[in-house]
Amino acid sequence: MTSAESAGEPDAPRPPARRRSPGRPDRRAARREQVLDTAARMFFERGYEATTTTEIGAELGLLKGSVYYYISSKEDLLYEIVEQYHRDTRTYFDRIEASDAPPLEKLRELITTETAHTATNLTRSSLFYTEWRSLSPERQRTIVAERARHEQAVLAWITEARAAGAVRADLDPKIATYAIFGMVNSAYRWFRPDGRLTAEEIGREFCELVLSGLEVR
Amino acid sequence: MTSAESAGEPDAPRPPARRRSPGRPDRRAARREQVLDTAARMFFERGYEATTTTEIGAELGLLKGSVYYYISSKEDLLYEIVEQYHRDTRTYFDRIEASDAPPLEKLRELITTETAHTATNLTRSSLFYTEWRSLSPERQRTIVAERARHEQAVLAWITEARAAGAVRADLDPKIATYAIFGMVNSAYRWFRPDGRLTAEEIGREFCELVLSGLEVR
Repeated sequence: MTSAESAGEPDAPRPPARRRSPGRPDRRAARREQVLDTAARMFFERGYEATTTTEIGAELGLLKGSVYYYISSKEDLLYEIVEQYHRDTRTYFDRIEASDAPPLEKLRELITTETAHTATNLTRSSLFYTEWRSLSPERQRTIVAERARHEQAVLAWITEARAAGAVRADLDPKIATYAIFGMVNSAYRWFRPDGRLTAEEIGREFCELVLSGLEVR
Repeated sequence: MTSAESAGEPDAPRPPARRRSPGRPDRRAARREQVLDTAARMFFERGYEATTTTEIGAELGLLKGSVYYYISSKEDLLYEIVEQYHRDTRTYFDRIEASDAPPLEKLRELITTETAHTATNLTRSSLFYTEWRSLSPERQRTIVAERARHEQAVLAWITEARAAGAVRADLDPKIATYAIFGMVNSAYRWFRPDGRLTAEEIGREFCELVLSGLEVR
């Protein structure tokens, strides 16, 4: 719970500029990504309310007001950061959900991947928890709906496995679902990129613990 | 993650005023508790930064400035709320730690009690997560140290049980500790006082899931 724990969000690798482009749109997109990264870090370190767009611009060497070339308001900036993080989860979530693996295999895959995603995007994943109230009610609903898809899928997988006799009948699938997300989502608070275990290893530990707790002996 | 989930923090029962007291100090203490309760609710609903002490006073029908008869600054108010919540945990934590029950029994008792404590103090338990950055670094350290005592105890109990062959050797005690607190601490985000299960029942579900995940088959 110290800001030291926010150390490591690495920059995502960017695709090389395409030759046929005059360069400018790509440079603008790259610069915009820098604005988002810097804002995410500053919101995390100082808090959303306490950070101004002028300060974000200054951190990037932009003249006062130039930050508005890349974004239209501070709340848009927060939303974009939080939404981008959640949009990135769709890639693996849709793949896992569409697969024809048995439900507990899907659960295992989601726990491992989601833990790793949370842990390798520490700053952005934390902003949903600490700053969600600064988003408009409509935008809160959009993000919450995206998270709810994951919860509903996990609940459905556990319920399906329970009906098939693979999960203990004395456990409540809904509380197990909350327990799983509580566990996975906590990673942003204590994961350290330079720690003893990788994000993937931690995801696998979580799986072992939960799956063997759920499964019928 | 909606403010509706904050509905239910009940007022703690207050001891009756003692006869030998002239009444005034007790009335002041009771009024002070109301200030803390109201501030906790307003910080939760609007955010700490966005709430002024004048607004807190107005909510209680106090004249501008009168709130300072009960508290000395807005940050003191936040600290008192968060600290009081953590002070309350000491009562059960010290009792569990001092008992001579086997380590996994202590773990079971702590998970159940701590889940119930979090769930029945929704507003206050959430403020640590959403507003900790608004506390001074020294005060953050005090609160984090209190929480670290719980984590260290759980880690020690799991390690002890593992050394005695009662907990699976292939699980990492530290990651299991993080998983447990992630699960327990998540209750403030989804527990509803009018929901299907009581806070104690949810605590017992968590125990079943984690203990059977940890234990050697």
